[in-house]
Amino acid sequence: MNYNINSVGRQIPESIPGIGKLVPFKGEGNYLRTENKTGAKIRYGQRDERKLLSSIEEAVKKSGLSDGMTVSFHHHMRNGDYVLNKVFDVIHELGIKDLTLAPSSLSPCHDHIIEYIKDGTITGIQSSGLRGKLGEEISKGILKTPAIIRSHGGRARAIEDGELKIDVAFIAAPSCDEFGNINGRTGNSACGSLGYGIVDAIYANCVVAITDNLVEFPNLPASIGMKYVDYVVKVDQIGDPTGIVSGSIRFNDNPRDLLIAQNALKAIVASGLYKEGFTFQTGAAGSTLAVARLLLDKMKKDNVKASMALGGITGYMVKMLEEGYVDGLMDTQSFDLDAVRSIRENEKHFEISASDYANPNNPTPAVNTLDFVLLGALEVDTDFNVNVITRSDGVINQAVGGHQDTAPGAKMSLILAPLVRSRNPIVLDKVTTVCTPGESVDVICTDYGIAVNPNRGDLIEKFEKAGLETIDIKELQKKALELTGKPEEIKFSNDIVAVLEYRDGSIIDVIRKEA
Amino acid sequence: MNYNINSVGRQIPESIPGIGKLVPFKGEGNYLRTENKTGAKIRYGQRDERKLLSSIEEAVKKSGLSDGMTVSFHHHMRNGDYVLNKVFDVIHELGIKDLTLAPSSLSPCHDHIIEYIKDGTITGIQSSGLRGKLGEEISKGILKTPAIIRSHGGRARAIEDGELKIDVAFIAAPSCDEFGNINGRTGNSACGSLGYGIVDAIYANCVVAITDNLVEFPNLPASIGMKYVDYVVKVDQIGDPTGIVSGSIRFNDNPRDLLIAQNALKAIVASGLYKEGFTFQTGAAGSTLAVARLLLDKMKKDNVKASMALGGITGYMVKMLEEGYVDGLMDTQSFDLDAVRSIRENEKHFEISASDYANPNNPTPAVNTLDFVLLGALEVDTDFNVNVITRSDGVINQAVGGHQDTAPGAKMSLILAPLVRSRNPIVLDKVTTVCTPGESVDVICTDYGIAVNPNRGDLIEKFEKAGLETIDIKELQKKALELTGKPEEIKFSNDIVAVLEYRDGSIIDVIRKEA
Repeated sequence: MNYNINSVGRQIPESIPGIGKLVPFKGEGNYLRTENKTGAKIRYGQRDERKLLSSIEEAVKKSGLSDGMTVSFHHHMRNGDYVLNKVFDVIHELGIKDLTLAPSSLSPCHDHIIEYIKDGTITGIQSSGLRGKLGEEISKGILKTPAIIRSHGGRARAIEDGELKIDVAFIAAPSCDEFGNINGRTGNSACGSLGYGIVDAIYANCVVAITDNLVEFPNLPASIGMKYVDYVVKVDQIGDPTGIVSGSIRFNDNPRDLLIAQNALKAIVASGLYKEGFTFQTGAAGSTLAVARLLLDKMKKDNVKASMALGGITGYMVKMLEEGYVDGLMDTQSFDLDAVRSIRENEKHFEISASDYANPNNPTPAVNTLDFVLLGALEVDTDFNVNVITRSDGVINQAVGGHQDTAPGAKMSLILAPLVRSRNPIVLDKVTTVCTPGESVDVICTDYGIAVNPNRGDLIEKFEKAGLETIDIKELQKKALELTGKPEEIKFSNDIVAVLEYRDGSIIDVIRKEA
Repeated sequence: MNYNINSVGRQIPESIPGIGKLVPFKGEGNYLRTENKTGAKIRYGQRDERKLLSSIEEAVKKSGLSDGMTVSFHHHMRNGDYVLNKVFDVIHELGIKDLTLAPSSLSPCHDHIIEYIKDGTITGIQSSGLRGKLGEEISKGILKTPAIIRSHGGRARAIEDGELKIDVAFIAAPSCDEFGNINGRTGNSACGSLGYGIVDAIYANCVVAITDNLVEFPNLPASIGMKYVDYVVKVDQIGDPTGIVSGSIRFNDNPRDLLIAQNALKAIVASGLYKEGFTFQTGAAGSTLAVARLLLDKMKKDNVKASMALGGITGYMVKMLEEGYVDGLMDTQSFDLDAVRSIRENEKHFEISASDYANPNNPTPAVNTLDFVLLGALEVDTDFNVNVITRSDGVINQAVGGHQDTAPGAKMSLILAPLVRSRNPIVLDKVTTVCTPGESVDVICTDYGIAVNPNRGDLIEKFEKAGLETIDIKELQKKALELTGKPEEIKFSNDIVAVLEYRDGSIIDVIRKEA
């Protein structure tokens, strides 16, 4: 096998059977394409054809799904999803083989499909994440073709540019009418935004809506319009509501997370980006949620208002919107019941697709309008590279999500992480897997101090002026090692189990099987 | 020149210089394509590039517009539009030549561009309509390449399938933020739905928003999102509000129109399609508006409710929505101030694109969900073909609009027309120009009786059962001739000035220069 070394120093094979030629990552903005986007298959609208079918089996048959094709699912049902497993039970029953499964992400509830990988029903997976036992098994190499891991923006780009061609998209639909007007706002399985599913519905050659809530036509507003949908299937349940959205995502008063969050807030204020009309994204993880809470307190005190909050939306953002501390929310994914209610009730809580959110090959993906973003990390290294996909033992168990997209998009990206987690150092010499390149990671906030990327001289200056103490990343690493001792090195074989795409389609890293 | 005779008996040249090979019309649903849709040029989102430019001239230059390219505009500014003329003044000033102008439609206010056709700035036009002096001049053959006339659905199809490639779309934006989030809901030039502009923004290789109402980011809800928009230009005024929307479109009690409307209502009731949950489209013309009023009266009396009203939306439909007589409106075009207010306030008044509305190459364009549609006509003939584009003297002065799309989409299409207009017979042996083929025209309601297409035996039976008197179309024609005398035959030359596409891309007729 011949290799190229990419711009973050990783060995990338020239090509991989079943995937093809790999373009090594060359740095943000250096792998541009100028051809045209692609589109779905043209389907003439048969006026009197009834879309409503009696079973998933009928839909799979009518969709023309056959060996070697690619199917997609959105992950708005999260760990409560029933649809993906149900569809694969049917596909397996029908004896269709060699499929590529290309969902926007996967959750532990999808461990069920391990058997379908082992029996050749599924031979390729392309996803933002792989979790649970499925991640472990894929890390052992059970998949015929290595998995392709893409960010949310990278996936939207791959679909729109024609790199990822979806033959059949199965759309879990919390509400749907007989013609296929879909939204995620009502029903037992309401999930709020359908941001990921929208891209699939527009670009797939065939779209099957699967709903447990068939409502009267017209189901308005439609997040996915009937013009995209070929078939509608009614089932008893598309998901477990408790797994789809949290009742309420709240910060639990973990003192370490609070300390990290306080450091992050200091950095935000010192950066000068915190001012009237600012824009931001926080995640739904412990310390980033804590920042959201601290930030709102500070905004109230200072009477500073934001213009836009982006991303996965939680009750904190909804509170800001409803109290007038942010003018609008752009929502690709609604995390809790407050967010679902808000997107239903408030037109300033605006549903956007994954392409609107983060596709780098659009004039303005929403991530490009961010002042700052708060992100997590499994590992960071002294080059500021971030790993959010593999555990310290090299096993895939998380997701890239919007990490790779928001970090370069925002004027300042902040990584929030403890210095040590479960006795493993988080700041390392080299991360196990590079997901987000150091060039777009600006600030690392830990419980032991704040490190700033030396390529951000402007920020270093601002932090100094503001009297904000920072620490060299190498000092952080040293501290981490003092606390944990040198971690045991994992030995990897040459067998590649997954390829990690950068959002532009080049390859930023590969994941190898443990030796 | 070699010709083919198409399925409505019209002579269609095999090809035309500047347009290419022409496919003769073969009947609805008989010219299907199975390739994939196209897409816009991939544009990498430069994070720090400022979109807001200081002038239209700067935008035209940055867009890369050059000789031979195609530019588009939407027609939501209707006869109040300032944008198209302003942009062409700049283009002319810059000396760019040989452009194809491909707006969704044109109004009399665009007579201004006649000089730019004469001097070679514009050498091709593709539009749903041509009116006023511009229509007259084009009918005389001033355009280098014959005009292409498409329906609203046909245009969306042509754009999505790649037949009509837009190099630069100029989007008149009643409200817009600095990143290009656009809607038509607020501002002095508010026009309501931006249904036609949405398709252009998605598929054009470069998109320039021109606004007189630059609002704070984020402008939500965005009808056209910032991901599509390359540049934003602020100007003083994009249109004359009085020309954009009517204060209120109301039926003026013309007794002839009322008689026609009463006949139409009888046909609707007799058809059996008038029942709980029905769907319909009416236009904004005299007699179709009268039907809307009569229909609402009847619905109130019978306590029958509709599920959906489609199309160009007027205050009548808004009234129905607000009084609970229709569950939802799907709006490609808002005709009056009530409609603009309603689309802003009510999420059940839902904005749809021209592609959602009528692109035949989608699984379900909204027209396919119609029970009945009310349409006008300049002429009909004894084969039920309808002309909505040329006057009886052969001059182009109207628009195809959604006529060709709704007629085959709806379960019953009703043409409302007086038997005689300005001393010209409306029912003829052969229409001057076939816009909508007789096969999809079901019922013709005149002030002298109702004619039913013989291919609709089911309707004839229902009308008979209901005791609704009908008249043979040939009898209608005879009556018309008795009233007007035989009209003088116009002599046409062989010079083709316009090509009339069917919605599927085949050619249903050509328009020739008067001899």
